[in-house]
Amino acid sequence: MSRVEKFTKQELLAVDAWWRANMYLSVGQIYLQENPLLRRPLSADDIKPRLLGHWGTSAGLGFIYAHLNRLIKKTGQSTIYIAGPGHGGPALVGASYLEGTYSDCFPKVTQDFSGMRRLFRQFSAPGGIPSHCSVTTPGSIHEGGELGYALSHAFGAAFDNPDLLVAAVVGDGEAETGPLEGSWKGISFLNPVHDGAVLPILHLNGAKIASPSVLSRKDPDEVTSLFEGHGYEVVWVEGDDLPWMHERFAAALAYCYDQIKDIQESARQGNWDGSRPIWPMIILRTPKGWTGPHQVDGKTVEGTWRAHQVPLSGVKQDPDHLKLLEEWMRSYKIEELFNEDGSPSELVESNNPEGDLRMSANPHANGGLLTKDLNLPDFKQYAVEVTPGSRASDRLESTRKLGEFLRDIYRDNPDNFRLFCPDETNSNRLGAVFDVSDRTFMERVNVIDEKLSPQGRVMEVLSEHNCHGWLDGYNLTGRHGMFASYEAFGMVSASMTMQAAKWLQEANALDWRAKVPSTNILLSSTCWRNDHNGFSHQAPELLQIVLNMRGEVGRIYLPPDANCLLAVSDHVFRTKNLVNLIVQDKQPQPQWLSMDEAIEHCNRGYGIWDWAGSDGLGDEDPDIIVACAGDVVTMEAVAAAEIVKTVCPQIKIRFVNVVNLTSLYRPKDHPSGMSTQHFKDLFTDDVDVIFAFHGYPGAIHQLVHGRPDADRFRARGFKEQGTTTTPFDMVVRNEIDRYHLVMDILNNAKRVPDNAIKLYRWCESQLARHQEYIVEHLEDMPEVRNWKLGSFEAPDLDANPNHSEAHVARPPLPDR
Amino acid sequence: MSRVEKFTKQELLAVDAWWRANMYLSVGQIYLQENPLLRRPLSADDIKPRLLGHWGTSAGLGFIYAHLNRLIKKTGQSTIYIAGPGHGGPALVGASYLEGTYSDCFPKVTQDFSGMRRLFRQFSAPGGIPSHCSVTTPGSIHEGGELGYALSHAFGAAFDNPDLLVAAVVGDGEAETGPLEGSWKGISFLNPVHDGAVLPILHLNGAKIASPSVLSRKDPDEVTSLFEGHGYEVVWVEGDDLPWMHERFAAALAYCYDQIKDIQESARQGNWDGSRPIWPMIILRTPKGWTGPHQVDGKTVEGTWRAHQVPLSGVKQDPDHLKLLEEWMRSYKIEELFNEDGSPSELVESNNPEGDLRMSANPHANGGLLTKDLNLPDFKQYAVEVTPGSRASDRLESTRKLGEFLRDIYRDNPDNFRLFCPDETNSNRLGAVFDVSDRTFMERVNVIDEKLSPQGRVMEVLSEHNCHGWLDGYNLTGRHGMFASYEAFGMVSASMTMQAAKWLQEANALDWRAKVPSTNILLSSTCWRNDHNGFSHQAPELLQIVLNMRGEVGRIYLPPDANCLLAVSDHVFRTKNLVNLIVQDKQPQPQWLSMDEAIEHCNRGYGIWDWAGSDGLGDEDPDIIVACAGDVVTMEAVAAAEIVKTVCPQIKIRFVNVVNLTSLYRPKDHPSGMSTQHFKDLFTDDVDVIFAFHGYPGAIHQLVHGRPDADRFRARGFKEQGTTTTPFDMVVRNEIDRYHLVMDILNNAKRVPDNAIKLYRWCESQLARHQEYIVEHLEDMPEVRNWKLGSFEAPDLDANPNHSEAHVARPPLPDR
Repeated sequence: MSRVEKFTKQELLAVDAWWRANMYLSVGQIYLQENPLLRRPLSADDIKPRLLGHWGTSAGLGFIYAHLNRLIKKTGQSTIYIAGPGHGGPALVGASYLEGTYSDCFPKVTQDFSGMRRLFRQFSAPGGIPSHCSVTTPGSIHEGGELGYALSHAFGAAFDNPDLLVAAVVGDGEAETGPLEGSWKGISFLNPVHDGAVLPILHLNGAKIASPSVLSRKDPDEVTSLFEGHGYEVVWVEGDDLPWMHERFAAALAYCYDQIKDIQESARQGNWDGSRPIWPMIILRTPKGWTGPHQVDGKTVEGTWRAHQVPLSGVKQDPDHLKLLEEWMRSYKIEELFNEDGSPSELVESNNPEGDLRMSANPHANGGLLTKDLNLPDFKQYAVEVTPGSRASDRLESTRKLGEFLRDIYRDNPDNFRLFCPDETNSNRLGAVFDVSDRTFMERVNVIDEKLSPQGRVMEVLSEHNCHGWLDGYNLTGRHGMFASYEAFGMVSASMTMQAAKWLQEANALDWRAKVPSTNILLSSTCWRNDHNGFSHQAPELLQIVLNMRGEVGRIYLPPDANCLLAVSDHVFRTKNLVNLIVQDKQPQPQWLSMDEAIEHCNRGYGIWDWAGSDGLGDEDPDIIVACAGDVVTMEAVAAAEIVKTVCPQIKIRFVNVVNLTSLYRPKDHPSGMSTQHFKDLFTDDVDVIFAFHGYPGAIHQLVHGRPDADRFRARGFKEQGTTTTPFDMVVRNEIDRYHLVMDILNNAKRVPDNAIKLYRWCESQLARHQEYIVEHLEDMPEVRNWKLGSFEAPDLDANPNHSEAHVARPPLPDR
Repeated sequence: MSRVEKFTKQELLAVDAWWRANMYLSVGQIYLQENPLLRRPLSADDIKPRLLGHWGTSAGLGFIYAHLNRLIKKTGQSTIYIAGPGHGGPALVGASYLEGTYSDCFPKVTQDFSGMRRLFRQFSAPGGIPSHCSVTTPGSIHEGGELGYALSHAFGAAFDNPDLLVAAVVGDGEAETGPLEGSWKGISFLNPVHDGAVLPILHLNGAKIASPSVLSRKDPDEVTSLFEGHGYEVVWVEGDDLPWMHERFAAALAYCYDQIKDIQESARQGNWDGSRPIWPMIILRTPKGWTGPHQVDGKTVEGTWRAHQVPLSGVKQDPDHLKLLEEWMRSYKIEELFNEDGSPSELVESNNPEGDLRMSANPHANGGLLTKDLNLPDFKQYAVEVTPGSRASDRLESTRKLGEFLRDIYRDNPDNFRLFCPDETNSNRLGAVFDVSDRTFMERVNVIDEKLSPQGRVMEVLSEHNCHGWLDGYNLTGRHGMFASYEAFGMVSASMTMQAAKWLQEANALDWRAKVPSTNILLSSTCWRNDHNGFSHQAPELLQIVLNMRGEVGRIYLPPDANCLLAVSDHVFRTKNLVNLIVQDKQPQPQWLSMDEAIEHCNRGYGIWDWAGSDGLGDEDPDIIVACAGDVVTMEAVAAAEIVKTVCPQIKIRFVNVVNLTSLYRPKDHPSGMSTQHFKDLFTDDVDVIFAFHGYPGAIHQLVHGRPDADRFRARGFKEQGTTTTPFDMVVRNEIDRYHLVMDILNNAKRVPDNAIKLYRWCESQLARHQEYIVEHLEDMPEVRNWKLGSFEAPDLDANPNHSEAHVARPPLPDR
């Protein structure tokens, strides 16, 4: 027997009325600026000057919503709604208006005549709301702009939310995108015991902007086969015959709900062999623009791409179209839907769930309401011991320390934290997490597998889109996480990072949106040490993208060592509504700062490293400033300064490291920006700065624009000069290695001693020797490979063999 | 009866020997720096110091290659090979070495002892080649770095190549990515008459870097169902039993070849009803690292993720591992594979196709060899007529003119040009192409459909990844095209654009790689006019990404009007090996330049528009320079200059427009960069510049770095301040509208007249009036909405109502 009672006649009437009210509001939002309740015949003046919005998908979205409401009322099931075709914003906005949530969030949009007028006028209008379902739509965790992420967001929301049902509508347009096609496999990672359920509803309304969709025109048997192949039980509902479509869809929903509950209850009672359940999904085929104008000007509109946006155009100018619009709107029988004062009728209201069960008011869709701070272990316990003397110690893999921190975060937050990574957790040296949680895997697990089980909660799938989308869904429902990727492949999901930032920026402007845990991204395996993979794996571009975000959302951290990485990580896990980008390599690297030093350094965001610069410089202006941001380039900068200090101690060097990149901005450009005084304290007014930067050097020019004498900043960085090479050769090719930096210092320092030219020539010869060495030995010269602070010994500059004939003198100013 | 004769014993021996030779070369590339033919027992000195590369997938890649060779020899079928799991570079490099192509391309890598030594040493080594299949791999059009694009590249190569077979190996790791999952539907767009065939070979080797793949662990019936759902006939080949696997795979290949030829011949003979054929595909299940070490240190390696990279580690240090390596290499029976001099044995050679039929030498995989210049109609025939007087005419949609040009390019190049667009061809005003070619669609076409047929050659699919990947495949096989997208969603495939640039940059360094048509990208529906869609549709970030490309590949054009768009488009279609980004809005816009003026302007890349600046300025230094790049901001800049010229004619304005953005770079930074003299001619040495820019303003700071007094450039641009609004309000919110620009001019001009303060106040009041107006009327003020050049009338500055109380004075310097 079903958990959902039979669909009664009264319920059918209520669902249908609710849907009609929703459709009426949808059409009104697209067309009307006045006369919202059609109290008088429509006139051209009632019509908005610009007709914008998407009608076509709205009808189906509202239909589904109406029926989910009825299911929720019957079952008390906590449910959120993901509108994949969220360009049908009118339906979702209208739904939350009917449920009263809209007025709760936007008190001026009241459930009466004036509120409805405001609802209509604000739609896709200045100072109003976008035509999509968006941040401003109560109940939404999914921007209806860039298509492709409905299902990955849905699964992200369901993880660790065992009592939640996520109804995810997928449009047949969106279904053509790669990210969406890649996200059906979410069920291969969804545990029926500790996760909630996702009910995908593929809405085949037949067309996109301008042409039919692929899935709507395939043989239906093929479509069934496709989704059975993904692992679903497919339930079809097709037609446009009313009221029978109501009957059929209600039955389909009830059936799917029963299947979901059967799966969950059985698994939770222990009757589960660990194999992946066959979860249900619905394929709903209804005409695009259902209930709208069937024909306009002799052309079929309903059921075609012509219904996509505004099916009746030129309404303000064309009396016939105006008449058609009025007929269309009146076809919903307004008098049954709204009371005299404009509030929803009792019949309509009777299809609204109560309180938090309203999908538009479900707290999971305003996840900040449910956010619990992480139980963060004391990050200092993972510290690498560093003393002034031990800065010269062996190299360590910094991200391993982060892995230990993440392990204990997993342990202490068993349902509030997840790591998302495309199959690279071990590769990125974060594998300690597997001590406390396996990789999640719902397909067959074999005896030879390690750290892999249905109970695991570490998310690995070879899909940056799934990883990012899952994290987004997890974050926006109030939980904490981190997406870790190879640096170059952070670009695969770059547009998702941008959209996440836009969401958070807009959310900041809405007081009813509670703040959610930040979008934390770790990029490891960076451009500078992807030697054997070559050029395709070298791209520090995501950093540039976060740099272009507004200061209220974007943060970039370039920790130079393990203790800084720990301090930065602890910080980002405490922040909300930010996009935090951390870039750090996974390879062994020198450890520079003690934990106390690291905390101070990271709190400030930048600092002078006296031990790396010239001795006894104090507050005196130096001859040159060597600055750096990024771990590998920091090592080169320290090594370069050491060479100069050893050979030409007369050159006074100030050494600056920047960990919070945006601290270089002016305060008016970014909240992390350092004051003019602090900037001068670091960089003086006029001393030349050699800046060794992890990313594209143009970013430094962008950052210091408007600072005193910005032209004196000579930035070196990644200039797409990568290839297959040894680790050190990578920096040589991009001319940001210690020898090139020494030459920069000698070229730009205020005062240079007599032996500078010899040192310059020695650097040239070292570069030439390097070239010869690596081709012969396939690895770097020992003095580079094994370098540690203090290991440099002054060379005999006069005994320098002439390797340098083939080399041109370094130009006096570094180019970008 | 099959077109492929029975697999003889002798062929089996040849295929097997070829494969073993290929495996031997693969292992050698990963491990050896000396002793390539094992003429003496392996010693630690023979082993490379760094062991890099991917063994796991190489065995399967070589197995498939060997069998394809046999098929080609039997049938003479022109075939190219796409290695989706291209991290198995050793197998593909080894294949082209065995075929002799490698020595043709790299004469030092001879087919003898010393050449083999070089082959091994260069692999994943300094100055050598990446561990992937890449640009340097003869026969490749597909970088084996970023996963996801194997099939979209394959289909792109097959379009309009009716005689070509593209064998596309898809790894089961790659198969998890969104872009790959979204690309199986290529057959819904592949015409059996005028296109070639794609044979996907899904290689289930079971694991990724660190864990099993989803598809390899699903119920095989589900997997079959999945691909039948995509529309394929699935042919399984499974096992590791030799020689039987040879028999089975040869039979499967022969069967698929027959099916493909049946489909093509039947369709080409006219026996085709237009429905989508059921194309064959192969699912090959073999162990990861097949034929490699089965167990190492007591742990199973073959068939697990442990075989992914280097299955035997520490070989230099561990004598047991060294011994295992030697046994492994000798297990391939070297003496049967290579002659005394190191050249391939006759048996191995006998499995090589001849000449251009070798997949490594197929000219389609070095597409520049086959590139024919486009038959370009004279673009001047689509010119908008503009005279100095008619600059004040009505606005036109510039991209419509491009649409007419594209229409005739389609007409005149029926098999050498395609437009790729995610369902937005009409939306972007390029719909004229449908006059000569339909949209391609192989699924069911209904009577109500328009411009849609299997014969169509305009590519629309709601997937930026497919569009970009198809274009890449089409370009790299030597044909011409354009990818058109909404500006914001150009970011969806941004990583593909970056990888395309890297490919072309590396190709430039290889003289044997013939140059191919450029990657042309048109971004329309830009951030400035995506008013109703709101914030999610506003992102000029791809421009920033192309800006960070090296000058030898990246080009950015911002045409201000239709004639410039035509001139730029004609140019980009004549270029090779570039990434050309064109950004232009689709909405009606003013037309500024006559065709002759446009040609001159675009040839130079920038220019002074005397008619927009102050009269009679000549060579005299102005008081202020107003510069702009981008169509919408150009309109605002022209309007701002007009206001100042009308009200404060004493302020001398020079007006500069930049169409080729990278011309602002210094010549040493970019080949398009303008000389210092030209820069001074435009921007003087010290006059302040107000720069109205289409993208993020930091880009301008990056571009002018190092120019005389770069700090005087005050850039305005997109600052993520977008929302849902009217067109003009969009520029107001980002403070780049005419009124803000006038205020900038007044704040920064060298000399300002007495009434400047009144004009400043008037601008403030206009902005306040604007705010009130749009909220009331939902559209822009008429004087803005209907503005044309010359329509501005001097206001009565003294009669100015006080709207401005709520406004703070503009700060003296524009922030970013």
